[in-house]
Amino acid sequence: MFMEKSGNEFLNLLSSAAPVPGGGGASAFVGAMGVALASMVANLTSGKKKYADVQADIDRIIKKADGLRNELTSLVEKDAEVFEPLSRAYSLPKENEAERKIKDETMESALKSACEVPLEIMRKVVEAMDLHEELAKKGTRIAVSDVGVGAAFCKSALMGASLNVFINTKLMKNRQYAEEVNQKTEAILSEGIAKADNIYRQVEAAVR
Amino acid sequence: MFMEKSGNEFLNLLSSAAPVPGGGGASAFVGAMGVALASMVANLTSGKKKYADVQADIDRIIKKADGLRNELTSLVEKDAEVFEPLSRAYSLPKENEAERKIKDETMESALKSACEVPLEIMRKVVEAMDLHEELAKKGTRIAVSDVGVGAAFCKSALMGASLNVFINTKLMKNRQYAEEVNQKTEAILSEGIAKADNIYRQVEAAVR
Repeated sequence: MFMEKSGNEFLNLLSSAAPVPGGGGASAFVGAMGVALASMVANLTSGKKKYADVQADIDRIIKKADGLRNELTSLVEKDAEVFEPLSRAYSLPKENEAERKIKDETMESALKSACEVPLEIMRKVVEAMDLHEELAKKGTRIAVSDVGVGAAFCKSALMGASLNVFINTKLMKNRQYAEEVNQKTEAILSEGIAKADNIYRQVEAAVR
Repeated sequence: MFMEKSGNEFLNLLSSAAPVPGGGGASAFVGAMGVALASMVANLTSGKKKYADVQADIDRIIKKADGLRNELTSLVEKDAEVFEPLSRAYSLPKENEAERKIKDETMESALKSACEVPLEIMRKVVEAMDLHEELAKKGTRIAVSDVGVGAAFCKSALMGASLNVFINTKLMKNRQYAEEVNQKTEAILSEGIAKADNIYRQVEAAVR
């Protein structure tokens, strides 16, 4: 439903103190913009005589990019869905031992769900970066800057989503589980940052 | 008008081979999301007893952030407006000397206008970073991750917009003017990157 609102309305909701959308959902949106730019560059390349020898790759990229965009826009909505139970768990009472136990268990399970969405956003934007990496070589030269813009957007979505994992794992009582999630997050984060920086550098060299 | 379209519709247009919106307008949109997160953190801080001593700063930040958001969403539309004449100039004929002269002059003037919008986007997102810098210290701790997400979005908008300056200055015949614009762009770019990285590091340390 958030993706059906106008851009201005989405920004109004994001700006407000309302619990959703927040930085996680916005990261999925920015990731979707990043992969939309891959679609755009591929669409501008498609059917051009000069790029006829990569047409099959371009067709594959368009299909993949459109799929990733759908997944990322679904994750905008998903992030809001998992945040609401977490937000409710925060407000549970903890006056006595029984209440504390319920709150702890509810929080722990809500925190786990709230980590899964940003992790998925991270995986999807790294896949989007792979498309930009390919487009930096095969895409039309007239839109090479958009490959760099797309990679930059995907990187910020990746970093934004990672903060949303860390802020949740920090509060988990099960430290072993939290550390496992953190390590998984760190691995995707460093892989993605290296990828995005590499693409951006190539584009920067091409436009300067 | 682009900001009145739904998020999904904006992404559809961005993905397509249509000349606008492109990476420049999308950068303004991502910058607007970055500054919307500053508004959000400030709104979550406002009126809280714990942060009563920074209420005046928070009020000022909310006002400034809302203004920057309006400016950035206007720049989404503005970027499309300046791209259209450039797009038309590209297609002008250059069969003879007279046509070449007209095309060169039209291109040169369209390229200048097409640089001004991304430069303005860059200035605005650096101003947005200043708000996040302040919120990293004064904003509510429960939303500290959103300060980092906001700074990351502003950085990618900054970098994305810079590529849109460079791709245009590269085509200018007046190399002195082009170099002046490039230097201005480089200066804002390095200032902004340093600022955003500094904020992000603080947030990362806080959530880990």
